[in-house]
Amino acid sequence: MRQVYLDHIAATPLDPQALEAMLPFLQDKFGNPQSLHSAGQEALGALEDARSRVAGLIGAEDSEVYFTSNGSEANNFALKGMAMARRDKGNHLVLSAIEHQSILHSAKSLERSGFCSTLVPVDKNGVVDPEDVKNAIRKDTVLVSVILASSEVGTVEPVAEIGRFCRAAGVSLHTDAVAAVGNIPVDVRDLGVDALSLAADQFYGPKGSGALFVRKGVRILPFIDGGIQEGGRRAGTENVAGIVGMGKAAEIARMKMPERQDRMKVLRDRLIETLPKRVDRAYLTGHPEKRLPHHASFCVEFIEGEGMLLHLDMKGIAVSSGSACTSRALKASHVLLAMGIDHALAQGSLVFSLIDRTTSEDIDYLLDVLPPVIDRLRKMSPLYTKFLEDNQK
Amino acid sequence: MRQVYLDHIAATPLDPQALEAMLPFLQDKFGNPQSLHSAGQEALGALEDARSRVAGLIGAEDSEVYFTSNGSEANNFALKGMAMARRDKGNHLVLSAIEHQSILHSAKSLERSGFCSTLVPVDKNGVVDPEDVKNAIRKDTVLVSVILASSEVGTVEPVAEIGRFCRAAGVSLHTDAVAAVGNIPVDVRDLGVDALSLAADQFYGPKGSGALFVRKGVRILPFIDGGIQEGGRRAGTENVAGIVGMGKAAEIARMKMPERQDRMKVLRDRLIETLPKRVDRAYLTGHPEKRLPHHASFCVEFIEGEGMLLHLDMKGIAVSSGSACTSRALKASHVLLAMGIDHALAQGSLVFSLIDRTTSEDIDYLLDVLPPVIDRLRKMSPLYTKFLEDNQK
Repeated sequence: MRQVYLDHIAATPLDPQALEAMLPFLQDKFGNPQSLHSAGQEALGALEDARSRVAGLIGAEDSEVYFTSNGSEANNFALKGMAMARRDKGNHLVLSAIEHQSILHSAKSLERSGFCSTLVPVDKNGVVDPEDVKNAIRKDTVLVSVILASSEVGTVEPVAEIGRFCRAAGVSLHTDAVAAVGNIPVDVRDLGVDALSLAADQFYGPKGSGALFVRKGVRILPFIDGGIQEGGRRAGTENVAGIVGMGKAAEIARMKMPERQDRMKVLRDRLIETLPKRVDRAYLTGHPEKRLPHHASFCVEFIEGEGMLLHLDMKGIAVSSGSACTSRALKASHVLLAMGIDHALAQGSLVFSLIDRTTSEDIDYLLDVLPPVIDRLRKMSPLYTKFLEDNQK
Repeated sequence: MRQVYLDHIAATPLDPQALEAMLPFLQDKFGNPQSLHSAGQEALGALEDARSRVAGLIGAEDSEVYFTSNGSEANNFALKGMAMARRDKGNHLVLSAIEHQSILHSAKSLERSGFCSTLVPVDKNGVVDPEDVKNAIRKDTVLVSVILASSEVGTVEPVAEIGRFCRAAGVSLHTDAVAAVGNIPVDVRDLGVDALSLAADQFYGPKGSGALFVRKGVRILPFIDGGIQEGGRRAGTENVAGIVGMGKAAEIARMKMPERQDRMKVLRDRLIETLPKRVDRAYLTGHPEKRLPHHASFCVEFIEGEGMLLHLDMKGIAVSSGSACTSRALKASHVLLAMGIDHALAQGSLVFSLIDRTTSEDIDYLLDVLPPVIDRLRKMSPLYTKFLEDNQK
């Protein structure tokens, strides 16, 4: 059976060149980067090379990049570390309503330390209006966090514009760029952000490697207290191989981005155009143009996303119904609800996210397989039966 | 030149079998464990197998093991998560004076939330007296944390006895077992601990993988807020390959422990016995018997540890002068100072920590190389010159 992996947002395959770069650090070069002997210095050199490559991908200086174990850790680090460092200044946060759970739940956990948050709404395409962010900023606001691109609906947010408002108001800005970095051009100076989260497994690097950019001079408390690693802000022995893999993947992403983007956009657009023609009552979610190049997401009426996912899996097609971080929760996505999609329709969420090896034939296969699967599932839906009956009247 | 790696406490090489187990998850099996499709389920299965293997190494139930990115993260998770979950009950912590920086600095950071700590002293061998812990426990004490084995001086602490006192007092107990797990038998029930930290790179697993054992029913706040991973207590995409490698290394450690221990103890004891005979004014640090099987540490008078380390490195010998997490700080170790070793002598700290491939010839080589290196360095020491002059008088 044909195997078609369309779940980039959950994880990308590791680039073979990144694996090749990692292997020596899983074999002979096993030194601890903090050791002063040669074995340690060799590991340290590799670590700093990787830092430079990650910095290069986002237009940062090397010293502004802090390695973490994934995007969620970077988000926790940013939100908690920056909020707590500003507690004397105020206790109010501004977040978009479509932030990742690692942002929303970090804000929740900050309530224990006296913080409160305002959630800025999004429009029907999942776009945050910078004016709304501006209006939500209060005298006691210390931090704004707006996602750069949603992994659930693909929409790319106007973070640069939000950055201008934040600078004018003297408020720090973090962006969760996990779904964006490595897939679209991201430059921390152009965005005007003080902090930015990224994860290697979104650009063909290994799982277990992420990073937080923190602009030079920006105050942030350590996330892992202890040793001297990462400037004392993120202690503990570094995942050397994982970091080296992320560095290599960052270098490749920077080089291949234009070509990858162009290729994926063509396939994505075919999916966006063709799927609603072949499947009745399937609606694109997220912005029709301002979206990730590898991302096509839909809500399909009278369908339950997880059921559809499992049936597609039996046909060799891997897709998701939203964020992997909440996959088993089986709740309607807070992102879709924030966009005004009703609860029933939100249950029919399907996210197709392409990887670099996705071919035109893969898309053909999906477009052939999907309609009969949906037909079969709908026939089992009492809601659909009722809908058909009502329509026949 | 002969290469002799005697820096186990900084990092062990990765077991080739562990690497072999990891490789599929760095190649074809790249699914996200939280994805509901087959690729995800395959990764999830591997993750849960690894959890079972890690649990098996420490006598825990699978559901009591939470994966982290290293030992320092596990220590932060335990200290911050357990203290904050008990804030209504009290705000006092009891720690030993020789805890790792990730414990001491976590306690420091908890001061911002109103906590304070009592440091329990150690004797000249670095041993904590359980009676001292008992006496330090107050009405408002919510958590005790005592290291199971010190990576700096090798001493194994009487944690089981401390556990009995803590249970009697109704106070939670955490132990930092990073240097111990995989190297000596560790059983969480025998120790009577509520939480225990471990790291794969201390038993031939990969860097970037650690775990925290939390006894069932013990309250602990999440460390990384966000998705549903690790029961919602440690969110973010899992380092699947790293965790699989840790699982395999745990399985091997469990199997090979008796043999490894016996072999290393012989070499360690030869080092402990012979080194002070060949090097004038070199003193064993830590307990002479109750110590890690791979660990021989000394303070050498009129010597600066980092200088010695670099000179040994030129001879192909990798050793350390204390914890890698503070290597560049160039301060006298707080562990040695707590043992009553004076500041000048503490500067001459040297830690030899054996790995499974260390041979008798490696020890011979070290014992041949070390005395002339020390002689040469001492000749450059004004303190040593003065000492010789004083002695000649």
